[in-house]
Amino acid sequence: MVTAAIIGGSGYTGGELARLLCRHPKITLEAMTSRRLAGSKVSDEHSYLEGFVDLKYQQAIDLKERYDIVFVAAPHGASMEVVPSLVERGIKVVDLSGDYRLSDPNVYTKWYGLEHKDVKNLDNAAYGIPELFKDRIAKATLVANPGCYPTCTCLGLAPLFSKSVVEDKVIVDAKSGTSGAGMEPTKMTHHPTCASQIIPYKVGTHRHSPEIQMVLERVAKAPIEVVFTPHLMPIVRGMLCTSYVRLKKDMDKASLLKLYSDFYSGKRFVRMVSSPSISAVVGSNFCEIGLELVGANTVVVMSTLDNLVKGASGQAIQNANIMLGLPETAGLDFPGLGV
Amino acid sequence: MVTAAIIGGSGYTGGELARLLCRHPKITLEAMTSRRLAGSKVSDEHSYLEGFVDLKYQQAIDLKERYDIVFVAAPHGASMEVVPSLVERGIKVVDLSGDYRLSDPNVYTKWYGLEHKDVKNLDNAAYGIPELFKDRIAKATLVANPGCYPTCTCLGLAPLFSKSVVEDKVIVDAKSGTSGAGMEPTKMTHHPTCASQIIPYKVGTHRHSPEIQMVLERVAKAPIEVVFTPHLMPIVRGMLCTSYVRLKKDMDKASLLKLYSDFYSGKRFVRMVSSPSISAVVGSNFCEIGLELVGANTVVVMSTLDNLVKGASGQAIQNANIMLGLPETAGLDFPGLGV
Amino acid sequence: MVTAAIIGGSGYTGGELARLLCRHPKITLEAMTSRRLAGSKVSDEHSYLEGFVDLKYQQAIDLKERYDIVFVAAPHGASMEVVPSLVERGIKVVDLSGDYRLSDPNVYTKWYGLEHKDVKNLDNAAYGIPELFKDRIAKATLVANPGCYPTCTCLGLAPLFSKSVVEDKVIVDAKSGTSGAGMEPTKMTHHPTCASQIIPYKVGTHRHSPEIQMVLERVAKAPIEVVFTPHLMPIVRGMLCTSYVRLKKDMDKASLLKLYSDFYSGKRFVRMVSSPSISAVVGSNFCEIGLELVGANTVVVMSTLDNLVKGASGQAIQNANIMLGLPETAGLDFPGLGV
Amino acid sequence: MVTAAIIGGSGYTGGELARLLCRHPKITLEAMTSRRLAGSKVSDEHSYLEGFVDLKYQQAIDLKERYDIVFVAAPHGASMEVVPSLVERGIKVVDLSGDYRLSDPNVYTKWYGLEHKDVKNLDNAAYGIPELFKDRIAKATLVANPGCYPTCTCLGLAPLFSKSVVEDKVIVDAKSGTSGAGMEPTKMTHHPTCASQIIPYKVGTHRHSPEIQMVLERVAKAPIEVVFTPHLMPIVRGMLCTSYVRLKKDMDKASLLKLYSDFYSGKRFVRMVSSPSISAVVGSNFCEIGLELVGANTVVVMSTLDNLVKGASGQAIQNANIMLGLPETAGLDFPGLGV
Repeated sequence: MVTAAIIGGSGYTGGELARLLCRHPKITLEAMTSRRLAGSKVSDEHSYLEGFVDLKYQQAIDLKERYDIVFVAAPHGASMEVVPSLVERGIKVVDLSGDYRLSDPNVYTKWYGLEHKDVKNLDNAAYGIPELFKDRIAKATLVANPGCYPTCTCLGLAPLFSKSVVEDKVIVDAKSGTSGAGMEPTKMTHHPTCASQIIPYKVGTHRHSPEIQMVLERVAKAPIEVVFTPHLMPIVRGMLCTSYVRLKKDMDKASLLKLYSDFYSGKRFVRMVSSPSISAVVGSNFCEIGLELVGANTVVVMSTLDNLVKGASGQAIQNANIMLGLPETAGLDFPGLGV
Repeated sequence: MVTAAIIGGSGYTGGELARLLCRHPKITLEAMTSRRLAGSKVSDEHSYLEGFVDLKYQQAIDLKERYDIVFVAAPHGASMEVVPSLVERGIKVVDLSGDYRLSDPNVYTKWYGLEHKDVKNLDNAAYGIPELFKDRIAKATLVANPGCYPTCTCLGLAPLFSKSVVEDKVIVDAKSGTSGAGMEPTKMTHHPTCASQIIPYKVGTHRHSPEIQMVLERVAKAPIEVVFTPHLMPIVRGMLCTSYVRLKKDMDKASLLKLYSDFYSGKRFVRMVSSPSISAVVGSNFCEIGLELVGANTVVVMSTLDNLVKGASGQAIQNANIMLGLPETAGLDFPGLGV
Repeated sequence: MVTAAIIGGSGYTGGELARLLCRHPKITLEAMTSRRLAGSKVSDEHSYLEGFVDLKYQQAIDLKERYDIVFVAAPHGASMEVVPSLVERGIKVVDLSGDYRLSDPNVYTKWYGLEHKDVKNLDNAAYGIPELFKDRIAKATLVANPGCYPTCTCLGLAPLFSKSVVEDKVIVDAKSGTSGAGMEPTKMTHHPTCASQIIPYKVGTHRHSPEIQMVLERVAKAPIEVVFTPHLMPIVRGMLCTSYVRLKKDMDKASLLKLYSDFYSGKRFVRMVSSPSISAVVGSNFCEIGLELVGANTVVVMSTLDNLVKGASGQAIQNANIMLGLPETAGLDFPGLGV
Repeated sequence: MVTAAIIGGSGYTGGELARLLCRHPKITLEAMTSRRLAGSKVSDEHSYLEGFVDLKYQQAIDLKERYDIVFVAAPHGASMEVVPSLVERGIKVVDLSGDYRLSDPNVYTKWYGLEHKDVKNLDNAAYGIPELFKDRIAKATLVANPGCYPTCTCLGLAPLFSKSVVEDKVIVDAKSGTSGAGMEPTKMTHHPTCASQIIPYKVGTHRHSPEIQMVLERVAKAPIEVVFTPHLMPIVRGMLCTSYVRLKKDMDKASLLKLYSDFYSGKRFVRMVSSPSISAVVGSNFCEIGLELVGANTVVVMSTLDNLVKGASGQAIQNANIMLGLPETAGLDFPGLGV
């Protein structure tokens, strides 16, 4: 067994990491931190973990303890304060914040409004979508775990851009459940506000927009324009991204599907289906993808995942598995709820 | 036309009062106050009122202006600070807070944790369920507008207690939409918390419990024990109260229904139906009631209403109509959404 | 008072017509038909109409009675069987089906799979979005009441196409509540299927696609390509259309907003807002529109309406008002629920 | 490994059995039947099982194959047609229908409207709530898997009745998610009907009423009156039962909690908590229980579970584990989703 710790374990992604790790066959969760909750039982905050996680929140992890892997589920800004000391000690880190996702520190500053304080590690961080960048992840000490929207969107579009069959403009109309907004009550996630409508927000200004662009450009090896419109949808878990791109030249649907099934051959967690469903993936690390060819040359790509699993904590564990030389699917190989 | 003002118009009940008053054939809304929003347009806070309510929030109402009726939609504690000066000037007041509902100031102190500062007006306040206490409301200067749960429960049970056909113990299992919790985001009304479950809360300790007891005792002219369990349900508007009482002696369902239809004869806003529905009353001032006789002698009474209309602002206007000598249904006589 | 009848009054749009007409100051609803429910009370099917609509369903309307306006809320295919006999007698008709919306009978046949049997009236039918085609509606005997998606989308895009400031391709990502699917239970609208996800359906193949294209081409006076992706969303009432177009040349957001406010000047039911909201329009005949300029030249237009009101029965009454020479807003001039 | 088959695998409980069995460490699922879907892949019907269950639906199971355990997820009436031939061959059976739950065939006939055709096996069937009847289950060839409402209610109330501390009347106000209604679309589970309200149904006439009574009487060894009111609630998975009983003599809350913790000591899947939560148990085999003492002597017991897991397929596997001599928690020992 290898050992793990979670820094910042009070929120949804921290709880979800613990939910998944407590059944992991190879990783033992040994510590969770929370400044606010230090001293209290983890299962007092996350009651569903009662009987599974018998830990108390610590103020901070003890760096003299040797953890094989540390998951950092702190807010952006706070992550880059704590990551350097871990990496320095040679501890493998999966960081779930936005701090190490954008490879260019100037882009980071522009979208996050902060100076980047750890450019050295930023340069070495691997971007953690395993279906696209597994080799780099395998060698990395630090993996930047992607945002939920970029994971869902880029898994949906990567095959098209990797084969250069589509033009350089993409429209992403994304719909997310409310758990993506985190545990802190806000005006927008107040039930009477959001339960009977779908709310577009941060249109063109969401921080996941440059992240999507960076990933697609890396795949396409060419500049791409991204128009990204996130919506808050009245469900708790799950996400659908509906993306629109134009073919450079005629292709039929069968050829497109062949391109996808070749691209994702052997990738356990990506499933090509005729009708991607959120319910089919909820609770699991799967991503479902489907597509339609509309009009002359528009490809409509639909992709779904559970924003807390494949969109966050599940993918973090998948990255950890790869970094640690464990089977990629360890602790994650179970189906979604279905209904 | 008579003139009206709303004190405390930033929340859901304030907005709902304005939504209903803006179409009222006899009452003109002339002022709304909000300390927090003073100076800003009402329709900036409540966008659906754009084009209907052309007012700016005031810091306070000008008592030199002569309003025929003032609706006080302030929190409890704050209401009894402002009501005395209104009543003193002879202005008719409908108070939507809990301050004037419980006729015994000691009971008020026990449940609200505050000393009552306006016992004189408390003594004279009428309790505003028009179907039960219309005569007193008609003569009152101050009406305490009831809580949503007491309105829904007591309309459902009053016929049985008024005819003394049931025993003195009642169990009320109530389910409310989240708008009843008000506009302020909280942990419990955070969408990811409450959207996929039904949450019992304040079991036996909710402030509406003594209010239900007071009203039923007034109707029954005898002491009654109330066990009241409210639940937060994942809908926005609407409420169902399922109440359980035991018959003193055998009665069949037809006799019970006859008792109800006699009791509510001529009461426009109470509708006896076989299956009470929230959807049928949403957006309207109607209350639907149905009942079943189960086992030897248990009557299961089900009652529904829209907590923001018949459970708050609609009933407040109904009370105002009565106080002002207007037709009781003025501005309120339209059907629920149905779907 | 003018008199009205509804043919096909058992479904959601029929019930909604009755809900609105029962409070209309100038139109009296005198008959509703339903083959299935003939002889039973309308309020037995639509309980919320109890006390407002005191009619029984008839097998068919009696053509010897002279109705000033007939609303046909029958399914497509059935409408064109009944409309000719009405028009022939000079009765004004608002048809809520798809039968008279697509001006080209060949396009109708392609998308509806039926031969058009009433091409003569099809030629004379006015398409009923009053904000775009009021003059023709005012003179028409037959108005084809638009689909919910086309109304929402085209109100959102018409200003841009009327001024020819955008390119000829539009992507419409639309999200609708489930009441748009009608009253008949189906696999897709089964609560366990649709309540925890958002489901894309009929991608590129929905019948509202050619209708949107027709309307926009009429406004633009030029050919337009429409990529239309409808989604089923887990709310009951309301719709959001997020549309994407590209500017032909640079414009700033202020100029775009000016273009919209000029275009909709004096149109009571269209409201430009910074954040279009479904809750703000639910229950009402309003459409809210907002927009953002993203990237180099993409305009993201967001529009919301209540699919049963402005998207169906409310707009039908608005059309009837115009046809009958009544004030356009009669019976419709009240705000949405807001929350 | 032991081998299993599922008869009737097209519905929600069949799919859920497969979802759980595909990760079971000791049981291999070898066959699933469905008359309607015979020949098609299981993962075509239940897409979330793609990659986990590689079976095709069979018309029927081949009795010459020796299955160690057969789960019958057929409708009532159909189960008693197929169970006898299995039991006769000595195959262990868990039946998820209502056919073998009510030990008295006359009660069965009264509530199900059918003659019981297999009274011999009915006499020998064990009722499968392991926390209450484990010894009998361990020896049984046939286990009647309980209804969701009886499991949730009786786990909540059994400690009180087993110690005879409460009176013989119980009121159960139960709220269920819509998946409990099964996979077949109906008027009541049509999203526009049920999504914005909570609907009481079959008040006093639901088939789970005599089942609850039978179990509680067995525990209490005395007659009990049950008043049972089920409600359909707008969530998909999960159930809350709020039950009301009266203490025979004074007890404080601490004593009651002690009584519960003693009773459930060592029972892995029952968890005493201060606030029972549906979200905490969704996806899992756990049942959460909490209680409050209200007024003079009323105990309000709240219990939650996932109706498809502990309320159906999870409990069926728990029963199978016991019958087969496997660890009771095998394949079921993971936490709920939490959020």
